[in-house]
Amino acid sequence: MDDHPDRFDDRAPAADYSPFVSDYLLYLLAAASHAASEQFHGQVRECGLKIAEWRVLACLVEQDGQMITRLAQFALYEQSRLTRIIEKMEERGLVSRRPDAADRRRVRVHLTDPGRTVALDLVGKARDHEAALMARLDENARGGLKSSLKALIRHLGADVCGPD
Amino acid sequence: MDDHPDRFDDRAPAADYSPFVSDYLLYLLAAASHAASEQFHGQVRECGLKIAEWRVLACLVEQDGQMITRLAQFALYEQSRLTRIIEKMEERGLVSRRPDAADRRRVRVHLTDPGRTVALDLVGKARDHEAALMARLDENARGGLKSSLKALIRHLGADVCGPD
Repeated sequence: MDDHPDRFDDRAPAADYSPFVSDYLLYLLAAASHAASEQFHGQVRECGLKIAEWRVLACLVEQDGQMITRLAQFALYEQSRLTRIIEKMEERGLVSRRPDAADRRRVRVHLTDPGRTVALDLVGKARDHEAALMARLDENARGGLKSSLKALIRHLGADVCGPD
Repeated sequence: MDDHPDRFDDRAPAADYSPFVSDYLLYLLAAASHAASEQFHGQVRECGLKIAEWRVLACLVEQDGQMITRLAQFALYEQSRLTRIIEKMEERGLVSRRPDAADRRRVRVHLTDPGRTVALDLVGKARDHEAALMARLDENARGGLKSSLKALIRHLGADVCGPD
């Protein structure tokens, strides 16, 4: 496959290759998100929830009665996949789907009382985890991080949980 | 399931509930990473590569001859899963696995010449995509974003692609 077996021992990049990965925005975003989420997702799983389920609950506790399209944007899942997840959440009594009062063709997802209890408990844990994480960053890193991320999300045309 | 059907029409959060999701660090990280990656991952797939394969190539072009343990950390995949992905990459002639010269029990992954060509092409595209993305942010957002993400990764005990 390779005509230059010596090349295999050359573990340094070419002289004209400037370092890339360790300063690559998409990698830094993925690595930071992965590492931060791994810490908290252990607590989500301890509550018997999948990550998508936690995201749906967190979004509904803020704004109840959202449509699945909107929840899928927030949960970062495809709509068809999230629809199945929400069906299972309904079977477990965490949410309830009901037609929109004004337009009955639209279905809205609502928290049940037990769902709201679980959601509020986990939002409390998420706030604590975030506060502990932010406290470990120095003021410079902490100050601009969220606003920079929001600017990036805005420029990418993505959007956050809220009214539809 | 719910004794208070009226609750279903209450779409506003409780009065003492302060907004959470739209300012939640883990959500901002996940949403920014998801949206930024979605843009570039289209180009990765056009090259006939999976995301994990692209991450392995990018890491090897920077530091050839890494071990799978290290590549799995970088690619954000479980080692067992990445081992299978690397076996497939070897079948396609993109990489080659060889024992470490000093300790033959350790296996190192090397780029083949065709693998290096694909990797350099995609790294070029990634640099272009990143430059375009950064150019859309104002100076404040751009200035601190990478250093804040690096601080966060460091505090989370995660690590970036590099020597093992």
